[in-house]
Amino acid sequence: MTAFADRLLAATDAHGPLCVGIDPHAGRIPDLFGGDTPDGLENWGLAMVEAAAGRAGVIKPQSAFFERHGWQGMRALTRILEAAREAGLIVLMDAKRGDIGSTAEGYVSAFLAQDAPFPCDALTINPYMGLDTIEPHVAAAEANGKGVIVLARTSNPGSADFQSRNLEGAPLFERVVEALGPAMGRLKGESGWSGLMLVTGATGPDEARRLRMLAPDALFLVPGYGAQGAGASEALAGFQQRGNRLTGGVVSASRSVSFPPEALNADSLDDWRTAVTAAINAAQADLFSAAGG
Amino acid sequence: MTAFADRLLAATDAHGPLCVGIDPHAGRIPDLFGGDTPDGLENWGLAMVEAAAGRAGVIKPQSAFFERHGWQGMRALTRILEAAREAGLIVLMDAKRGDIGSTAEGYVSAFLAQDAPFPCDALTINPYMGLDTIEPHVAAAEANGKGVIVLARTSNPGSADFQSRNLEGAPLFERVVEALGPAMGRLKGESGWSGLMLVTGATGPDEARRLRMLAPDALFLVPGYGAQGAGASEALAGFQQRGNRLTGGVVSASRSVSFPPEALNADSLDDWRTAVTAAINAAQADLFSAAGG
Repeated sequence: MTAFADRLLAATDAHGPLCVGIDPHAGRIPDLFGGDTPDGLENWGLAMVEAAAGRAGVIKPQSAFFERHGWQGMRALTRILEAAREAGLIVLMDAKRGDIGSTAEGYVSAFLAQDAPFPCDALTINPYMGLDTIEPHVAAAEANGKGVIVLARTSNPGSADFQSRNLEGAPLFERVVEALGPAMGRLKGESGWSGLMLVTGATGPDEARRLRMLAPDALFLVPGYGAQGAGASEALAGFQQRGNRLTGGVVSASRSVSFPPEALNADSLDDWRTAVTAAINAAQADLFSAAGG
Repeated sequence: MTAFADRLLAATDAHGPLCVGIDPHAGRIPDLFGGDTPDGLENWGLAMVEAAAGRAGVIKPQSAFFERHGWQGMRALTRILEAAREAGLIVLMDAKRGDIGSTAEGYVSAFLAQDAPFPCDALTINPYMGLDTIEPHVAAAEANGKGVIVLARTSNPGSADFQSRNLEGAPLFERVVEALGPAMGRLKGESGWSGLMLVTGATGPDEARRLRMLAPDALFLVPGYGAQGAGASEALAGFQQRGNRLTGGVVSASRSVSFPPEALNADSLDDWRTAVTAAINAAQADLFSAAGG
């Protein structure tokens, strides 16, 4: 069994650091897919998987946008996850779950178990409730070759409210990362990188560099590139020079690659595909170039 | 439109402070309902709603245990939520969501909007990402007569890892509660209580008393009573004397009321119902008596 970290590295080595967000925002699903309905989400998501395959190694569906449509939305999500797996894409499930032991086991069964109904390669987790709430995910990831992505320093302004405040001598988000040290070791692959990933917003490059010092082996998931305002060099602030380029995680883009203006108004699937694949290729090239190609 | 806080108070005044957890743990759904399958969850959950109605005013389904069964589990959850609404029960949806603005709006649409596909009266929220991630929920609750339940000090040992540590002079969970002051004011009902509820584990009565001083009007959701080890007086530590009894929130019990030993091995629906209703009545009486009722 190949460790998740090594699979992620192979995917980004092959395609570049872009992670394509699958975020079906209300009002943005083109009519040609069926609009903002469960079927529209499914058709659009399957087309996004097809557009991403071969151009990016990693996708990140956002659960909230599917939950909007209730169980039918979750059924659409399931079919998109299955298609992504068949296409060989690595799936980072962005659901930001977190709960106590027996309940955490429920989320593990849903997302990280071998036969999980929502099949994915890694799951985002909120650390507020403490290490015992993260442990079931780490144990499952260790057993099943999966990853765990813990929120550290997020990309929104509200990250200043608690995450960046001083907890006994260091920002809370650094305390979270410190506490995750043993888990990082357990999910380390042959590449030396760990599948205990950290979320470090692209809007906080200084914090990302600081986290890289604290957690030299953790892969980063960097949101906030593109529509949220950060450029490629800020997004890669926490990456490391290895060989001839910067590496150490993925940079996610959602609106900028899935809803470019030409795609929103596309009259045909061909036009839509042309617009979206161009946006994916452009983001990948932008990041690849900033990483030193 | 009656404020959520006032509706919750009316329900606990009528029935007592018990909140019945709807937590379909793996391996605990009796065969007579269909066992650990989506249909089993649905049949069991509908029977729990029927058993709770008239004996408790409030239920709390745990999303994780339904997500285990994928979209079919979420369909079962939906039908249970609809049955609870028809039965006049107040539903606290325990999903511990939390994400940035546009994504938070997705969760609002799923749970707190007027036409939400997962209909409920309040939703549990994780505060780690900051106030801007909580705001969409508060705004929706204000507009729709719903509640928002923010994790403060949870009932698990891991609450010591971050929540109880010193953030600039006070425990993190107190800083969270301080920051929620304006939101508490916005969700205040005619009763004077606020529908911005706080999760304060029954295993931390001292912390609950401290939180009551910091947030005198916030209704509390107290988990950890029963199977997690805390007794009625500990669970009510953060409640306040008003009139001739303690009031100020709900105390949730799950395993002790939904899986009493006699129910697990019940041969018939009648036997199961007898065991579960007796357990609900016993917990309600225990809490009612400790509250001075």
